[in-house]
Amino acid sequence: MKTILVMLRAHADDWVRLLKLGLPNHAVVTDRSAALGPLSYAVVGKPPAGAIAALGRLDALFSVNAGIEALIESNEIPEGLPLVRMVDDGLAAGMLEWVLAETLAWHRNLFYYRSAQHENRWAPLQEKMASERTVSVLGAGHLGLPVAKHLAALGFNTRTWSRSGTAIPGVDSYRGPDGLFACVDGSDMLINLLPLTPETENLLDAALLQRLAPAAVLINGGRGRHLVDEAVIALLDDGHLRAAVLDVFRTEPLPEGHPFWSHPGVFLSPHVAAPTHPDTAVASIVRNIRGFESGLPLRHVVDRKRGY
Amino acid sequence: MKTILVMLRAHADDWVRLLKLGLPNHAVVTDRSAALGPLSYAVVGKPPAGAIAALGRLDALFSVNAGIEALIESNEIPEGLPLVRMVDDGLAAGMLEWVLAETLAWHRNLFYYRSAQHENRWAPLQEKMASERTVSVLGAGHLGLPVAKHLAALGFNTRTWSRSGTAIPGVDSYRGPDGLFACVDGSDMLINLLPLTPETENLLDAALLQRLAPAAVLINGGRGRHLVDEAVIALLDDGHLRAAVLDVFRTEPLPEGHPFWSHPGVFLSPHVAAPTHPDTAVASIVRNIRGFESGLPLRHVVDRKRGY
Ligand SMILES: NC(=O)c1ccc[n+]([C@@H]2O[C@H](COP(=O)([O-])OP(=O)(O)OC[C@H]3O[C@@H](n4cnc5c(N)ncnc54)[C@H](OP(=O)(O)O)[C@@H]3O)[C@@H](O)[C@H]2O)c1
Ligand SMILES: NC(=O)c1ccc[n+]([C@@H]2O[C@H](COP(=O)([O-])OP(=O)(O)OC[C@H]3O[C@@H](n4cnc5c(N)ncnc54)[C@H](OP(=O)(O)O)[C@@H]3O)[C@@H](O)[C@H]2O)c1
Repeated sequence: MKTILVMLRAHADDWVRLLKLGLPNHAVVTDRSAALGPLSYAVVGKPPAGAIAALGRLDALFSVNAGIEALIESNEIPEGLPLVRMVDDGLAAGMLEWVLAETLAWHRNLFYYRSAQHENRWAPLQEKMASERTVSVLGAGHLGLPVAKHLAALGFNTRTWSRSGTAIPGVDSYRGPDGLFACVDGSDMLINLLPLTPETENLLDAALLQRLAPAAVLINGGRGRHLVDEAVIALLDDGHLRAAVLDVFRTEPLPEGHPFWSHPGVFLSPHVAAPTHPDTAVASIVRNIRGFESGLPLRHVVDRKRGY
Repeated sequence: MKTILVMLRAHADDWVRLLKLGLPNHAVVTDRSAALGPLSYAVVGKPPAGAIAALGRLDALFSVNAGIEALIESNEIPEGLPLVRMVDDGLAAGMLEWVLAETLAWHRNLFYYRSAQHENRWAPLQEKMASERTVSVLGAGHLGLPVAKHLAALGFNTRTWSRSGTAIPGVDSYRGPDGLFACVDGSDMLINLLPLTPETENLLDAALLQRLAPAAVLINGGRGRHLVDEAVIALLDDGHLRAAVLDVFRTEPLPEGHPFWSHPGVFLSPHVAAPTHPDTAVASIVRNIRGFESGLPLRHVVDRKRGY
């Protein structure tokens, strides 16, 4: 009997119950010492320092998050151990909802009308059609691709940027370092859904953000370290950015006193864009383990060299 | 040469230019006295009292708006004159955007996080999946149908209500007076996209709104007179409604001092959900006139008995 260790602070009971349902012939434990023999797999979020090294040799380590930069940066994951990131349709659906909510809220001026109401002003704007706006999506992976598809279907002029230049019908795709500025040039909305790697860290700096159309809206659903905080503040202050919609931050929770808290152009949420829902996420891990044990290669294994 | 009179206060020049482009063999005028002979068609928004009676016998009267209750109620449109309402994909796209913006903003707690930010609170909520929410759409016509389809595709449990019970794949459809309460029972969001008729006026009253789930969100994109204002305020006050998102009002602009302006649960916009964009709307009228003059029946003629 193979053993799965669930090392999670939140909803561990749900994960155990659902894993047992999906893999009835596996033992599922939340405590290393409760395992009868060696462990085969561990399911982790943000494990405490030293915890992974103490587990012994595993067949695979499953992250409950799509972003795995913290696990890589911990330097605790042995070279040969397959690290599997979370790829789950429920997660992608959550990110799609959040990006659509924010994109459409800004496209259709919801926060402007909220302010007008507070000032007792009946002040209709000339509402633009989606076809009058250009949106650029950085990252065309599990999360970025459905977002770009959907925005294009709603009529926005849609562009994506990725390493390989993934083609999406109805979307203009750009690739690699040379394609980045071309992708964002003159865009009205910039949506970041990149993974955090040495190559993408600090990518959203003043030089890039200045390429956007005047009064553009930045929507960051990736990671806080993609963003140069000071550049965002400066461009909001001089009006080049209309708003920065930020779900992720260099330090989370966002520290008290950080200028993002009170800047009128910053619209923040506490890392809730695409939460992992155990119902759908467990199914993804179960499928992967079943396939692996029947001889298929593990899916969604992180390429350590690329960093994602 | 047939003559079209454009009787509009806003964007009349755009309408004339685009109509001339689409119908180069017609005369297009903005002033009755500039017409050389009798008029064939008139294009109207909210014409001043008496204006339509003064036009003489027309082949058809085109409304630039989807809602034509004011024209009917004016009692100025001769019995036999076909009144054509605006049916335009651009209009439907605008309403879809607006309803999606509001539905997703409330689904994903955008205004809650905005308040939390103002209070310097990092306060993630347990975000629900679309499949955990039920939304009911009143009206399954040109505007309601694409909205319902799209919400269902995003994973919401979606219901519609119409006179005829139009079936939409993946959507539970209800019909007629008997189906109304069944459609809204326990819904988390109610989206109104009905036309205003004697049968639908004041439909959204206390009895109906009480059927919704506790803390439901009401989204009114139809007409102000669908809503019993006092019932909405009372249900917001006792918490049965979480929010009322209102784009339309009994009197527009909403009068100074109306409780909707300052009620914390009311989120209002100044009738901007689905503006008529001349680019797409003119094309719809042009197609209709071309078809009519080549012998096809006029499309989108209002059924005066039904009231829409
Ligand atoms: N805010 C939240 O709640 C939340 C939730 C989940 C995830 N996230 C973030 O979203 C990120 C993306 O997740 P995902 O599942 O979509 O990842 P993914 O499937 O691995 O996709 C990553 C995309 O980024 C592109 N990319 C990576 N490095 C690049 C580079 N140097 N230059 C150009 N393109 C590059 C990839 O290009 P290729 O297609 O060519 O490989 C791919 O299109 C996660 O890493 C995480 O940071 C946030
Ligand atoms: N806020 C804005 O900016 C804005 C802009 C445009 C339009 N609107 C409003 O939206 C309304 C709807 O436009 P539309 O183009 O979708 O109209 P439509 O195509 O005529 O559709 C009307 C829908 O309502 C249903 N209906 C009408 N009377 C009913 C009754 N007594 N009981 C049950 N169902 C009934 C119809 O049922 P059947 O399908 O069985 O006929 C149909 O599904 C307009 O009339 C206008 O008031 C608002």
